[in-house]
Amino acid sequence: MTRVKPSEEHEAVTDDRGEGRLRDAAERFRDWGRWGEDDQVGTVNHIDTGDIVAAAGLIQRGAVFSLALPFDDKGPQKGHLRRFNPMLFMLRDGDDAVARDLMGVPRGIGAADDVVLMATQGGTQWDALGHMFYDDRMWNGYDARLVSSLGAEKNDVAQYRDRIVGRAVLLDLPRFLGLDWCEPGRATDGAELDACAAAQGVEIRRGDILLIRFGQMAQCRAAGGWGDYAGGDAPGLAFDTLAWIQEREIAGLATDTWGAEVRPNEIAYVNQPWHRVALPSMGLLVGEIFDLDALAADCAEDGRYEVFFVACPLPITGAVGSPVNPIAIK
Amino acid sequence: MTRVKPSEEHEAVTDDRGEGRLRDAAERFRDWGRWGEDDQVGTVNHIDTGDIVAAAGLIQRGAVFSLALPFDDKGPQKGHLRRFNPMLFMLRDGDDAVARDLMGVPRGIGAADDVVLMATQGGTQWDALGHMFYDDRMWNGYDARLVSSLGAEKNDVAQYRDRIVGRAVLLDLPRFLGLDWCEPGRATDGAELDACAAAQGVEIRRGDILLIRFGQMAQCRAAGGWGDYAGGDAPGLAFDTLAWIQEREIAGLATDTWGAEVRPNEIAYVNQPWHRVALPSMGLLVGEIFDLDALAADCAEDGRYEVFFVACPLPITGAVGSPVNPIAIK
Amino acid sequence: MTRVKPSEEHEAVTDDRGEGRLRDAAERFRDWGRWGEDDQVGTVNHIDTGDIVAAAGLIQRGAVFSLALPFDDKGPQKGHLRRFNPMLFMLRDGDDAVARDLMGVPRGIGAADDVVLMATQGGTQWDALGHMFYDDRMWNGYDARLVSSLGAEKNDVAQYRDRIVGRAVLLDLPRFLGLDWCEPGRATDGAELDACAAAQGVEIRRGDILLIRFGQMAQCRAAGGWGDYAGGDAPGLAFDTLAWIQEREIAGLATDTWGAEVRPNEIAYVNQPWHRVALPSMGLLVGEIFDLDALAADCAEDGRYEVFFVACPLPITGAVGSPVNPIAIK
Amino acid sequence: MTRVKPSEEHEAVTDDRGEGRLRDAAERFRDWGRWGEDDQVGTVNHIDTGDIVAAAGLIQRGAVFSLALPFDDKGPQKGHLRRFNPMLFMLRDGDDAVARDLMGVPRGIGAADDVVLMATQGGTQWDALGHMFYDDRMWNGYDARLVSSLGAEKNDVAQYRDRIVGRAVLLDLPRFLGLDWCEPGRATDGAELDACAAAQGVEIRRGDILLIRFGQMAQCRAAGGWGDYAGGDAPGLAFDTLAWIQEREIAGLATDTWGAEVRPNEIAYVNQPWHRVALPSMGLLVGEIFDLDALAADCAEDGRYEVFFVACPLPITGAVGSPVNPIAIK
Repeated sequence: MTRVKPSEEHEAVTDDRGEGRLRDAAERFRDWGRWGEDDQVGTVNHIDTGDIVAAAGLIQRGAVFSLALPFDDKGPQKGHLRRFNPMLFMLRDGDDAVARDLMGVPRGIGAADDVVLMATQGGTQWDALGHMFYDDRMWNGYDARLVSSLGAEKNDVAQYRDRIVGRAVLLDLPRFLGLDWCEPGRATDGAELDACAAAQGVEIRRGDILLIRFGQMAQCRAAGGWGDYAGGDAPGLAFDTLAWIQEREIAGLATDTWGAEVRPNEIAYVNQPWHRVALPSMGLLVGEIFDLDALAADCAEDGRYEVFFVACPLPITGAVGSPVNPIAIK
Repeated sequence: MTRVKPSEEHEAVTDDRGEGRLRDAAERFRDWGRWGEDDQVGTVNHIDTGDIVAAAGLIQRGAVFSLALPFDDKGPQKGHLRRFNPMLFMLRDGDDAVARDLMGVPRGIGAADDVVLMATQGGTQWDALGHMFYDDRMWNGYDARLVSSLGAEKNDVAQYRDRIVGRAVLLDLPRFLGLDWCEPGRATDGAELDACAAAQGVEIRRGDILLIRFGQMAQCRAAGGWGDYAGGDAPGLAFDTLAWIQEREIAGLATDTWGAEVRPNEIAYVNQPWHRVALPSMGLLVGEIFDLDALAADCAEDGRYEVFFVACPLPITGAVGSPVNPIAIK
Repeated sequence: MTRVKPSEEHEAVTDDRGEGRLRDAAERFRDWGRWGEDDQVGTVNHIDTGDIVAAAGLIQRGAVFSLALPFDDKGPQKGHLRRFNPMLFMLRDGDDAVARDLMGVPRGIGAADDVVLMATQGGTQWDALGHMFYDDRMWNGYDARLVSSLGAEKNDVAQYRDRIVGRAVLLDLPRFLGLDWCEPGRATDGAELDACAAAQGVEIRRGDILLIRFGQMAQCRAAGGWGDYAGGDAPGLAFDTLAWIQEREIAGLATDTWGAEVRPNEIAYVNQPWHRVALPSMGLLVGEIFDLDALAADCAEDGRYEVFFVACPLPITGAVGSPVNPIAIK
Repeated sequence: MTRVKPSEEHEAVTDDRGEGRLRDAAERFRDWGRWGEDDQVGTVNHIDTGDIVAAAGLIQRGAVFSLALPFDDKGPQKGHLRRFNPMLFMLRDGDDAVARDLMGVPRGIGAADDVVLMATQGGTQWDALGHMFYDDRMWNGYDARLVSSLGAEKNDVAQYRDRIVGRAVLLDLPRFLGLDWCEPGRATDGAELDACAAAQGVEIRRGDILLIRFGQMAQCRAAGGWGDYAGGDAPGLAFDTLAWIQEREIAGLATDTWGAEVRPNEIAYVNQPWHRVALPSMGLLVGEIFDLDALAADCAEDGRYEVFFVACPLPITGAVGSPVNPIAIK
């Protein structure tokens, strides 16, 4: 008996939706084996210990910036891709302590305890390299099937547990462009990134992590609500920044948008085409929903757009992303 | 009609269980208002920006140590206090991508996404100051009722979002004592901490975070299982270290045990008596279940027991604890 | 030192907001002790075994109706009162089975397993009598503090585990009134309920469970979306139905609305005033978000508005509500 | 570059582990199409409306039995197959109500609300037909890939929403055999089931649901703990009961054990071989972890082993199992 097939079985696509362009990039930028057959962290290998020591010299004022959005129910998620804002459940609390004994502890003493449920991509987060597949493969050629319902056996976010430390450079595009924010749909290419850096008087070097501010979070703040920040149109990186990124040998990048790349996407064939190359082919560290506004204001004031940066994720075994509190220090 | 009272209503306790000693300490070490009426972070105020700049000088090799235990189902929790090990649920994965289209993405491409459920005190974690109450109050005099089922309105862990950066000092007690590990039930007092520091050739200063290794995690590793690590007997700090801690004006401390203080506790009146003073009265930053073994091995090798330390928690609004990946850099 | 009080500390209220009317009703209808000091199920005691046997006689066609809304992310919740729609997480699935071995089971065989997270009040549900408090008490005089962060020690939903079986009567108000649905804000009183029953040719008896259809779910279906079904304006029971309900000695009632009583509420003093009397004082079984549309269509067709009804909740220890699949049989 | 394959890639198996016997049964008992190409509920189709009406006649005393184990942290799960006992989180509670205003409700009034997290196979439960696969197919020939990380598009548990109503027959094996309980490892075949029914004076008919008591839950009660009830050795159905089941045209069965079939399993090739045929080939309704002890005591007393049975699961869209409170009425 012939039975129904999975309902979303894909139809033939014609190349004018960009499949060819995507495939070309996926092959051209494929960097598997560059850091050994067993590598699971990709471009953060560009950071060497000397870079870390050198970056420590950027700590001159003792000013610390958290780049994380609060993890709570006021976050941007609205159910797109089944992601949701963090949920907090209390296991016991101060009202229990005031009202009565609980768990054998005398009234008035007590303690509070809690539980948090988070979509790892729901707020400020790093993607793991197991987050994206292309041609049944993920970064460094690992079989996509190594990411099952049990989690990722390879390329999970725990691989980054001690690897995201070094120099970060803020690129504040709206300030550079004289805008309040980059409008949704506006693509930034490598030339614009270079021009921004030059205008800011900062050099982009091998091993840097780029913090790219498009201003979309500021736009939401001005509007008093998230609108369709999560999964809607957005300013972002042009598809062709892939070459620029690989040439510069940066360690990774993070943006103040939901998805790093420009939306609507430049290639219609698949959602988030830049990601399909950046992660599986190039092994790029990508962060999203970073709150760069306070840091940007500070950089504008002191004119220094480079920081010491520590943003190692929670080593959640098997996870393909992690919430993170990225710390920039000047 | 008279009805049943809450079943755990506390019975009268006699002072020989230590209630008086606890009360004396709670009052003696009470430091409310020291950093202003609105303060919610307590002793991390001992860190000043100069300390951060100075500590940056400790980054000399570019060696990075993650002090977090992996967040997964192999953690130490066994249900005590309703805490549990982290649980990972996949929203989509590589097997979906290989098997079929999903969410409109062509087969072979796809992406993985996931969700994590964590008891905030379940693994490597910081306590927030809203975690503990005494006499219906928490740190800085805030009413315990400000921690309700909705979470903590005051003293939540998000207050630490950019405050746990500076110099940390490792005190490796078993190595100092010539032991494989400190046995459960063994209490360490201030004099022993001083002696350990002296033997290691490291000075404890105002604003430091102490990483105190008792070796219990190493003991579990040797045993091949957690046993009753979570909530059972443990080596730890003596109750009287409270005075030592306050005098030294340290910014906080973390241990490789479940609960920092010695177990069985020295005061029988209440579970974890040291905590009832350290958090509500003193405003002390306390971390637990830190994995200090690799760092300790490195310190033993190079003889340097001080590190640049970045361990800001996830800013989970309202939470009274947070999982954290503490980073030590040398 | 005097410190901040809980931020939501209540201000003095004047009686013109209806506090007096609420208090009068709470006292007038208080039925504590009626079924013994230990009772935790209230009005379902009105059902006796003879009623169950008699109701079995209503099973004449073998027609079975599920009155539950599907438990999924298409439900009505939008975060009001922190409630959310059910979330399903797969622990393993068919794509895993097709793609590879998993958990040692050969490829192609495998199994699927899953996890569900539900707000107990998020979909079709029974309230437990521990769901509501008045003057620090709940049903039968039990101290409200018996419902702590650990759950309800008394009056939890598990008390109903074998108690919700008997005769149910459908009251189809919009059909009776010649409307598509009762408009939000429209209150139904006891006289209207009586008139509806009379018009339908059905008698309301001691021990019945009333299924009261206001048509709001049909209205949402017509509109193609839930709108503010969850917590917004709604048709519903008038406050004064409390007397009518108690006099008739019904076992309970359920509606096709979010909150049973009319919204905006008739008493401004507190949200859902009818509930504050119905549950704590009267011990009434209340169900909400029941999908009565298919049953109503069938009753209109055969002219029989009485059914055999089995709707025991999941016995979730300590829970103050439970999702339920109520079954009506004719 | 050749990369690592999924780590659990299956090795060639020899037939002496029973693969051939499994395959023979899978083919022999395959009943796809019997109830139409679109059927998703299998053997419950054996129940017709006349059976329901007839079964109503069994309601003679108005005695109601809940066959569900309490859903709480005292359940049998210990992490096997990543299943866990139900977890309850309070969104607000009585201690909040007593201690303070919350959500704008005056102190002393308030309400409680909660959230439950359940592995659908964690307690008393029905399997959906999407729970098991064989040769990349599930019941009625549906592609296993229709059960993805998004849930089951076909054969989910919601298909049973109004289908599990009718006559149930209890087979109390230990009482029949004169044992306290059947020992783990003891297999019951069809002849024994027939003999038990005969001894009990009850006829097994087309459309019945069999409630088969092996006594393992009683054994755990006697031992004062679950031991390895969840996934360990167990009494249960012999593999060859498959023929007996199909011949008798029963609608389904449920047991008081974790997994219905005998453990250690009779076929070593795959875990739970009986399930691989019963669900994908035969479309059999299977329930597990049913608490049959109280019902069994009652049946022993009155000598009547047949009941009216209502056990429709929660219609959780896409789920491959559901917690259930099965109700037996006499």
